Amino acid sequence: MDFDRYDRIRPIRWMGDHLALLDQRKLPFVVEDVACGDSDAVAAAIRDLVVRGAPAIGISAAWGAVLAGRGIEAGDGADALSKLAPALDRLQAARPTAVNLMWALARVRRALRVAGENWREVLECEARAIEAEDLAANRHMGALGAALIEPGSGVLTHCNTGSLATAGFGTALGVIRAGVAEGRIARVFASETRPWLQGARLTVWELLQDGIPATLVGDGAVAHLIKGGQVQWVIVGADRICANGDVANKIGTYSHAIVARHHGARLMVVAPSSTVDMATASGDDIEIEMRDPAELLSVGGVRMVAEGVQAWNPVFDVTPAGLVDAIVTERGVVHQPDANRMAALFGAQAGV
Amino acid sequence: MDFDRYDRIRPIRWMGDHLALLDQRKLPFVVEDVACGDSDAVAAAIRDLVVRGAPAIGISAAWGAVLAGRGIEAGDGADALSKLAPALDRLQAARPTAVNLMWALARVRRALRVAGENWREVLECEARAIEAEDLAANRHMGALGAALIEPGSGVLTHCNTGSLATAGFGTALGVIRAGVAEGRIARVFASETRPWLQGARLTVWELLQDGIPATLVGDGAVAHLIKGGQVQWVIVGADRICANGDVANKIGTYSHAIVARHHGARLMVVAPSSTVDMATASGDDIEIEMRDPAELLSVGGVRMVAEGVQAWNPVFDVTPAGLVDAIVTERGVVHQPDANRMAALFGAQAGV
Repeated sequence: MDFDRYDRIRPIRWMGDHLALLDQRKLPFVVEDVACGDSDAVAAAIRDLVVRGAPAIGISAAWGAVLAGRGIEAGDGADALSKLAPALDRLQAARPTAVNLMWALARVRRALRVAGENWREVLECEARAIEAEDLAANRHMGALGAALIEPGSGVLTHCNTGSLATAGFGTALGVIRAGVAEGRIARVFASETRPWLQGARLTVWELLQDGIPATLVGDGAVAHLIKGGQVQWVIVGADRICANGDVANKIGTYSHAIVARHHGARLMVVAPSSTVDMATASGDDIEIEMRDPAELLSVGGVRMVAEGVQAWNPVFDVTPAGLVDAIVTERGVVHQPDANRMAALFGAQAGV
Repeated sequence: MDFDRYDRIRPIRWMGDHLALLDQRKLPFVVEDVACGDSDAVAAAIRDLVVRGAPAIGISAAWGAVLAGRGIEAGDGADALSKLAPALDRLQAARPTAVNLMWALARVRRALRVAGENWREVLECEARAIEAEDLAANRHMGALGAALIEPGSGVLTHCNTGSLATAGFGTALGVIRAGVAEGRIARVFASETRPWLQGARLTVWELLQDGIPATLVGDGAVAHLIKGGQVQWVIVGADRICANGDVANKIGTYSHAIVARHHGARLMVVAPSSTVDMATASGDDIEIEMRDPAELLSVGGVRMVAEGVQAWNPVFDVTPAGLVDAIVTERGVVHQPDANRMAALFGAQAGV
């Protein structure tokens, strides 16, 4: 399958002496890198949202650790680890709630701990592996997910789960890339995703770069769209998947899920197994992060709403497993997820 | 009931020698009138969206006819009508698809046709009556709708159906005003209503002027909001109500309706009986107006989406009668609407 044709964007590029990060704050109008020459520049880029998306943040941090290593002398990995500790802590603090950031830096620390005098190569190998594994997982998920899609189908995605959010290819958007490459997908729709407009600013731009025609729709137009028979699968990512298959994802996902079920369209959730949290029994146990109401009061920096108006701005919602038709991970697919089916694939992960 | 306390805004004010229209293009940041001294200025104001909302457009056009009458001499109504014909045609052409505009001008023409030498007074009386009847209908609907709401309820509305869209008080927003005045409504939420953001720009501003606290939510956050038990009624207006109770309304209404039913919240549609079209059997017979995709590509005049991206921008959607719990008109309430219950109240209107 010629996936490369549909996978041109790389938000993170290791240049041998610095890390080039595609500045996602300026997309889609300015396509420009931020060059990070040391680990603190990487930390700043993560904090300032130059790079976004959980996998992309983790990979960037691993390369940040490589850059930190350039600045020190050490006899072996353990020695290097103690000297790098402050820089690694600063990377980790850049987005304190990002699970993938902690996970990537934990891998870096583990690798260093057992490394000998070749610790610099070990460090760079680890960063390269984290990046390569993410891309490979995405391509594998793409193939698994695309296999579920009947030829001639229309699909709808929400938020941005693409190359921009990962090492490349994307999760939900990876399934869409694979489905297009395999000739299964006839129509691609992307919802705007208020308040940040990731769908409008990032997803349709990213697909355009790869020559995949996509149509932007308002979040509120999705029910009318699906009723018209244009969409057979709604395909989304996940921020956390619970032990019973409940899915926390970007606000608006739950609405799309209800509307899809109402019309007999199906819902596919695509995420690496690191997103599965078998220690959280169900969505009831997830506290939904609330963000600044100001995000709803302005659009693209332009104030739209009168002074004194209150707004309610949850970042995520929870889609119950009963509305999910398939959870696709690099370990395999869980159809009609429930606690038993989740445990059958992810049981070993309990308590992680 | 002290409705006046919650009804301070008047978008259309007859000043004796000119018509003052609140400039809705500049809200919520600039509260400023456009003074229309002749009928062509009213036509321009309608065309340029100074005034919006079907009832408000009709009322404005009737006052435009009064202004046109100032510019002519005529011996009786029939003579005046023939001399006013070009001006009335220009008013009617200002928003060619607006049903209320045609309806109001037809009333003006009928009144003139039978008027004697006092045709100027007849014309002004007709304009005043159109305005007064709209306000009275809205207050009556407000009382009928509010009676359906249990004390302590939360409500959600979509788009703007308020004083700004009518002579005053509003339709769906009138029910909310009445419910607040009667102490039945404990929480008011308004959804943004992309792409025009009428909820964000107009509805929450209008409620703020009347001291009714309202909370703005993204269109995509409504499912999560209703799931949390904060909303007992979704209350919306209508652009057309079919003979079987299907309701065409602002895009996003249908999604809210599905999500409300999924959670056991109820849906109330509030509109004057002139919105009921017994000649249209069902929503399947309604052609949905599509607007310029550019409305989705920019927000508040700021381009947000890359060049070359396609967008799909239907203005309305259709909510099937089966998802509607009550249709409130000034003639009465149709509960659980279907063709029989609609005919029982509106049968005489068939063919209009």
